[in-house]
Amino acid sequence: MNGYSVAIVGATGAVGTKMIQMLENAAFPIKEVILLASKRSVGKKLLFNGKDIEIQETTNESFDGIDIALFSAGGDISKQFAPEAVKRGAIVIDNTSAYRMDPEVPLVVPEVNAEALKQHKGIIANPNCSTIQMVVALNPIRNKFGLNRVIVSTYQAVSGAGNAALKEMHDQAQQMLNEETYEAHILPAGGDKKHFPIAFNVLPQIDVFDEDGYTKEEWKMTNETKKIMGDDGIKVSATCVRVPVVFGHSESVYIEVEDETASVEQIQNLLNTAPGIILQDDPSQQRYPTALAIQGEKEVFVGRIRKDIDEEVGYHMWIVSDNLLKGAAWNSVQIAEKMHELGLLNVKA
Amino acid sequence: MNGYSVAIVGATGAVGTKMIQMLENAAFPIKEVILLASKRSVGKKLLFNGKDIEIQETTNESFDGIDIALFSAGGDISKQFAPEAVKRGAIVIDNTSAYRMDPEVPLVVPEVNAEALKQHKGIIANPNCSTIQMVVALNPIRNKFGLNRVIVSTYQAVSGAGNAALKEMHDQAQQMLNEETYEAHILPAGGDKKHFPIAFNVLPQIDVFDEDGYTKEEWKMTNETKKIMGDDGIKVSATCVRVPVVFGHSESVYIEVEDETASVEQIQNLLNTAPGIILQDDPSQQRYPTALAIQGEKEVFVGRIRKDIDEEVGYHMWIVSDNLLKGAAWNSVQIAEKMHELGLLNVKA
Repeated sequence: MNGYSVAIVGATGAVGTKMIQMLENAAFPIKEVILLASKRSVGKKLLFNGKDIEIQETTNESFDGIDIALFSAGGDISKQFAPEAVKRGAIVIDNTSAYRMDPEVPLVVPEVNAEALKQHKGIIANPNCSTIQMVVALNPIRNKFGLNRVIVSTYQAVSGAGNAALKEMHDQAQQMLNEETYEAHILPAGGDKKHFPIAFNVLPQIDVFDEDGYTKEEWKMTNETKKIMGDDGIKVSATCVRVPVVFGHSESVYIEVEDETASVEQIQNLLNTAPGIILQDDPSQQRYPTALAIQGEKEVFVGRIRKDIDEEVGYHMWIVSDNLLKGAAWNSVQIAEKMHELGLLNVKA
Repeated sequence: MNGYSVAIVGATGAVGTKMIQMLENAAFPIKEVILLASKRSVGKKLLFNGKDIEIQETTNESFDGIDIALFSAGGDISKQFAPEAVKRGAIVIDNTSAYRMDPEVPLVVPEVNAEALKQHKGIIANPNCSTIQMVVALNPIRNKFGLNRVIVSTYQAVSGAGNAALKEMHDQAQQMLNEETYEAHILPAGGDKKHFPIAFNVLPQIDVFDEDGYTKEEWKMTNETKKIMGDDGIKVSATCVRVPVVFGHSESVYIEVEDETASVEQIQNLLNTAPGIILQDDPSQQRYPTALAIQGEKEVFVGRIRKDIDEEVGYHMWIVSDNLLKGAAWNSVQIAEKMHELGLLNVKA
């Protein structure tokens, strides 16, 4: 059978398991899927299209014969193995932050900047989850009305911090409901000094702090948005907040456009026909997206679009997407689909 | 024993029970506390200073001999009974939205506009919870550096919707943890057409929608901020969001000041000595307020103060307070304390 050989690095993680699911319906032929992880997981089995696949340890040799390698096992693993995978002929689509701001590496959201794929040198970076859903929603507005400014406050799900963080939230929630004692060991950021409970709480820290008082997650939203949109002039400031939600990031986004003739109705019409977006916006029917309602969906959902009370070119909106799908696994597989469509993958398939 | 006769209307509610607690340590003499509620609660008993007090039904006659009447039983009850209470000689401190925007009624946060109490005609309005904590934090900044603009996204606790909403969240959370079916009957807004689950979810609707796409809660933040600060020129736009938290509203607030010489350090120093505020702001130590950590405290907590990345006069901050205390019960009792201090209550005490 013809088709690509696809490897998933970090196959047992929260994103890796979703990558397997997304590959099952990918719009390109697949010859085989190789599941890679750390030594710890070797021998475990995961299902792909109803077939058991055994997890193998990630080594340089794992990438011999691989056409597409999807990485989601942390930045260090990407830095260690991605160049090796490229050397052995694979296209790497990396879901970590390791290469995102590398000027040699395209940072791609297919609805926004698929053209950038043509400049690739073997590695393509998948943006940060909170950035992806925001740029999908804002890009059509920018193309039509110009975009000067973005102020975003996020409501990010715990699954973005991985399966161990999810288990911790689950345990804390049960302990709190039972009025028992509880502990925190993972959030807000795995490697940081202090840990705080997330169940029935809200944590204004995702990833670690830079010296300027912003977190790395907040800087990702600023810098990645500029790179993906190819415009350093857009002003973007973010406040990134973890909320006790399992799947689905929500974002309260304020924007200022250039065109004073823009209107809520025009923006709604634009987003209603834009690729990858589902408009759910009718306050009279309490129609707006929520994390719980859209989990498992691949699109970006937008609602509550309204004009700022005072600022002529200011608009507010509410953007929700499944952080593990469009924010991670689906965007990665979608990049591979787009590369296949553009003829950028090995021709043997 | 000398002292005031104090009535609590809505004594069995989420705010009412906190009013009883706050009265136990009030800085004015109390002769007696009368607990009022609907017929349904008559005969129940609640403790005040270790003494059982029986709930009575609210009637016009309940206010005979009352000096201070704290209302928190919904706008309709306030409209029905507050004028009667005033007629019978009571000062009404009303925690509902019934009189807040009435030009004859002072809308008071003691740290901000205690002077407005002197204009009262019997009723004083307690602002909306999300407004109170924001103006406490922003007023010192406004006084020193001027304040042109506020953009706020809230993370509001379920207790703001009352005890029945809290029970619903508790039940939903347990059912979700058990992977059982769950239902929603109360949130996002009691009287609205549709209801959505709040456990492990985020709802971008608090109170009902106006025709312009903003919710009443969002308009409260806009209009009440202007009234409390006595300045219609401040631009305020809000996105109000319910999160699965029991006690404590968090707010991601962006402001623009007038004074270009302002700095993060100066704002921190201002807030560090301002009344009713506790500054918790040291990213290097992961020091910032969270809802779970500050529940039960009376102050407004501020952290994550940082300059906007692009806007010279723009600052971001994170403001957290216990919505049932400073956001409701404590602000009401604090208003009574201030009136006592200013000699605005009946002199018999």
